[in-house]
Amino acid sequence: MNVNGKPYRTVWFENRRVMMINQHLLPERFEIAEFTTPGEVAEAIKDMTVRGAPAIGAAAAYGLALAALEAPERGFDGRIAAAAKMLAATRPTAQNLFRSIDRVTAAINRGNSVAGKRKAASEEAERIADEDVAACRAIGRNGAALLKDGMRVLTHCNAGWLATVDWGTALSPIYTAGRNGIRVTVLADETRPRGQGARLTAWELMQEGVPVEIIADNAAGHLMRTGCVDLCIVGADRVAANGDVANKIGTYEKAVLARENSIPFYVAAPLSTFDPRCATGAGIPIEERAGDEVLWTSGWTEDGRLERVRTTPQGARARNPAFDVTPAKYITGIITEKGVTRMQRPTDELHGGTTEARRH
Amino acid sequence: MNVNGKPYRTVWFENRRVMMINQHLLPERFEIAEFTTPGEVAEAIKDMTVRGAPAIGAAAAYGLALAALEAPERGFDGRIAAAAKMLAATRPTAQNLFRSIDRVTAAINRGNSVAGKRKAASEEAERIADEDVAACRAIGRNGAALLKDGMRVLTHCNAGWLATVDWGTALSPIYTAGRNGIRVTVLADETRPRGQGARLTAWELMQEGVPVEIIADNAAGHLMRTGCVDLCIVGADRVAANGDVANKIGTYEKAVLARENSIPFYVAAPLSTFDPRCATGAGIPIEERAGDEVLWTSGWTEDGRLERVRTTPQGARARNPAFDVTPAKYITGIITEKGVTRMQRPTDELHGGTTEARRH
Repeated sequence: MNVNGKPYRTVWFENRRVMMINQHLLPERFEIAEFTTPGEVAEAIKDMTVRGAPAIGAAAAYGLALAALEAPERGFDGRIAAAAKMLAATRPTAQNLFRSIDRVTAAINRGNSVAGKRKAASEEAERIADEDVAACRAIGRNGAALLKDGMRVLTHCNAGWLATVDWGTALSPIYTAGRNGIRVTVLADETRPRGQGARLTAWELMQEGVPVEIIADNAAGHLMRTGCVDLCIVGADRVAANGDVANKIGTYEKAVLARENSIPFYVAAPLSTFDPRCATGAGIPIEERAGDEVLWTSGWTEDGRLERVRTTPQGARARNPAFDVTPAKYITGIITEKGVTRMQRPTDELHGGTTEARRH
Repeated sequence: MNVNGKPYRTVWFENRRVMMINQHLLPERFEIAEFTTPGEVAEAIKDMTVRGAPAIGAAAAYGLALAALEAPERGFDGRIAAAAKMLAATRPTAQNLFRSIDRVTAAINRGNSVAGKRKAASEEAERIADEDVAACRAIGRNGAALLKDGMRVLTHCNAGWLATVDWGTALSPIYTAGRNGIRVTVLADETRPRGQGARLTAWELMQEGVPVEIIADNAAGHLMRTGCVDLCIVGADRVAANGDVANKIGTYEKAVLARENSIPFYVAAPLSTFDPRCATGAGIPIEERAGDEVLWTSGWTEDGRLERVRTTPQGARARNPAFDVTPAKYITGIITEKGVTRMQRPTDELHGGTTEARRH
């Protein structure tokens, strides 16, 4: 997508460096961060310079490709294994991370020489990034069919192009529809504690000229109940075999409220986010992050200084689960690059159809 | 309740001044603000130096008593009517505000002389404050019967003693139980956008030695679903005749999630919060506040400076409904000074009883 008229990906490889849009500085400053070692890339995933399951997947792939380029011939396989382990240990929930590491590792193992392995690693990482762009583009086309002019769409967290290599998952249908003249208004959940909705989703949509209103996470239910939301679309960090979805904390709340108010609730995710080895959502590890993310907030003062402020009593404690699991029964459908899987039909109720979806 | 070992009310009258704990400065600084005119009191209600329906009610009563003291004999009635109108226009949702103004106005009207009217106004205001303390104390006793040692109780916003004249509504049962040796752990929803849970509820509970963990509002559903919440108690800004409850934005979300997870959801409110003229929640006006409350956050830097920071893109827009309505069907019961009204029995399900509450 374009930033100030110039096309960017969220993460890419250039001159033996992994390049990323530094998401810590958005929406205030647009800066590219450069990483020259796999350890730096792992740190960038861990500290959320890059975030969003598909973008993390691409970043890890490039990080492992970097490891292949820099590992000496002697002990090459051990260095690759160590780098793969380090990258896999950065974050536990996003499926794309593990899938990318597995793919690049397999590509390396297929190489006949160290030179061949290096080339294979770089090519596979590039392929993963390109495939993500293509999948997100297709998600946009498939999801756009759900949107009608004038709709008000609620989204949670950031599942836009910053969360993927390009285009996004939940926001890709909105961008695609917009370029076809179908205009929707987005209600962006702030998405505490880290505020990805307020910081990133709002910024992305404003860059693209899509009308967006930020709301406190607490307001989503009220707006659904009072008829201000026509459709919900969110992303996913991992989709279990039964259709349960792990996504940013709060997604489960919004899904329950959507069903309660007969509002369609869609998840948009490429197939790389699906984990057939997880039978249900109960098998998905939920990351618990530091309580400080709840206790402190950062932002910009009136005169442009970045400040970190405590919004809680000194010595207060916080719990901070970073993801939750939304059982499949609350999800209307999953928008993938292959099409939209219909899981429930809550809107049928509105049109006199089955009420099965409400009876679970 | 005690602050640093000394007993305080949230709002009181002293030397022709209305005194209030300045809730803008908590949890960082404990300061008493003084107001010498009804206009200043109205401003303090509007800017939320004092907040919480019962505390607003007492503040408005004292403000009108102040008007009676300062109004000249000539044109006395007109001055009282103007002050009552000004105080009533400060905030639209909390029922106690209107009820208090009506009561003090009626007391003034019953006086036979200006001196008598002044005395009657002050006495009625004091009576309103004392009755609130007694009601909240009784809510504590009635609600404490619902608590068992070791329970984990979720609350939203601040319905503690800072929201009333003393003791609180939702937190009064917890204080009462605690003094009887029944210890619960509180999960305090942060309560964006203004963070009353993170700032005030956490501070109150820490002052009283009650274990408390602050959570992002988004985490409440996940914690309910994963068995970390035994009971919910919240306050109310207005209770309609049919039992629908207006309370801080997000209350509706938590009530729906509690029912979905078969967790009892109680509202604690004195009868002064009930509005028999509102047939249902649809008749309760919902205050929409400035979007800046969502776009900006204030807090304390590491070195103790109070800073206001923008957490959103420059030029972003926000919607900010300050309250929502929770339909009665989601509420297990309302804890009042007269007892607990049982409305639904979601826990019966857990014990093999009726599932009626879930079928609405």
